[in-house]
Amino acid sequence: MDTRVIEVRTGGRPAVVDLTSQVAEFCHSRGDGLLSVFTPHSTCGLALIEVGAGSDRDLWTVLERVFPRKGDWLHRHGSPGHGGDHVMPALVSPSLVLPVLDGRPTLGIWQSVVLVDPNRDNPVRRVRLSFLSG
Amino acid sequence: MDTRVIEVRTGGRPAVVDLTSQVAEFCHSRGDGLLSVFTPHSTCGLALIEVGAGSDRDLWTVLERVFPRKGDWLHRHGSPGHGGDHVMPALVSPSLVLPVLDGRPTLGIWQSVVLVDPNRDNPVRRVRLSFLSG
Amino acid sequence: MDTRVIEVRTGGRPAVVDLTSQVAEFCHSRGDGLLSVFTPHSTCGLALIEVGAGSDRDLWTVLERVFPRKGDWLHRHGSPGHGGDHVMPALVSPSLVLPVLDGRPTLGIWQSVVLVDPNRDNPVRRVRLSFLSG
Repeated sequence: MDTRVIEVRTGGRPAVVDLTSQVAEFCHSRGDGLLSVFTPHSTCGLALIEVGAGSDRDLWTVLERVFPRKGDWLHRHGSPGHGGDHVMPALVSPSLVLPVLDGRPTLGIWQSVVLVDPNRDNPVRRVRLSFLSG
Repeated sequence: MDTRVIEVRTGGRPAVVDLTSQVAEFCHSRGDGLLSVFTPHSTCGLALIEVGAGSDRDLWTVLERVFPRKGDWLHRHGSPGHGGDHVMPALVSPSLVLPVLDGRPTLGIWQSVVLVDPNRDNPVRRVRLSFLSG
Repeated sequence: MDTRVIEVRTGGRPAVVDLTSQVAEFCHSRGDGLLSVFTPHSTCGLALIEVGAGSDRDLWTVLERVFPRKGDWLHRHGSPGHGGDHVMPALVSPSLVLPVLDGRPTLGIWQSVVLVDPNRDNPVRRVRLSFLSG
């Protein structure tokens, strides 16, 4: 298994960061197999969505409805509403698997691999890419 | 890695389509390994739920609450409320991995693999099955 | 592929059960690869969240909002609101993949692997661990 950790600059605000080109670059010339994309943080998730047409901002509308920043969270520390950030990964998982053929992830034309980080207290995140060939 | 794309007829309306028998057929006589089920569309997801007892329709009730068709989505094109369809895959992932033993996915008796497609504008969808033996 | 089924005692109430030590023990001395964590029940999910600081209870607040026990579910049997339990796995998937390096799951310091079981009618659950080395 080949594996690499990439650093992702999210800045100090809720961020949806497109990782597609880094994922593609990692898979390049590796043949066929399964790619695990994994982020080791307790307030981040990974998703496959279209970016650039508004859906990344629409995602925040949904997340605010499900995990309201004004919610009465038991887990309290950091920025207001941060307790909800800690529940998000139960629904937006930090683990994602992509099939890879001939060194290319078999994504659809409108699919991007994104890191979803509602947390405003950590400007840099890590994502592990692991390729198991078959 | 053995891989195949199947076409799924969803018709022109929101659909939960049971793929279990096609998944089982693909795994048949392949031994042990991991099966990736993946759909390359930006408005579809995959899920493991019981079908035939009402849960497939209950799922739409939940999705309508989380992604309301009357929502004020930034991503606007196609049918009304289609912007919400584009966020759904962040919570109902288009990627799913199943353990396979002796050519059989180790599903529970009430679990079915389903394609969840809220989109009414595309009557045919694709799903990629990829088996990595171990 | 090495695989094992573990039994998880959830008791007769909604439960978030930490499986991290059992997952770590299973991976021990297995080298590098991908670990599939899978539960074959139609009303359970798996998640990676922090435990012990309130997030496990915050998770129930979110699940009650999305799958209200007083909801008018079509799937009716068992305890009141059980129909919602049957939809939960569409959003909290019963399948999870973890990268493993040198016999250790590459979890973040605050991440725990948990079984999420809203069902109060089944006191014992099963989880299958499957390791594919690479």
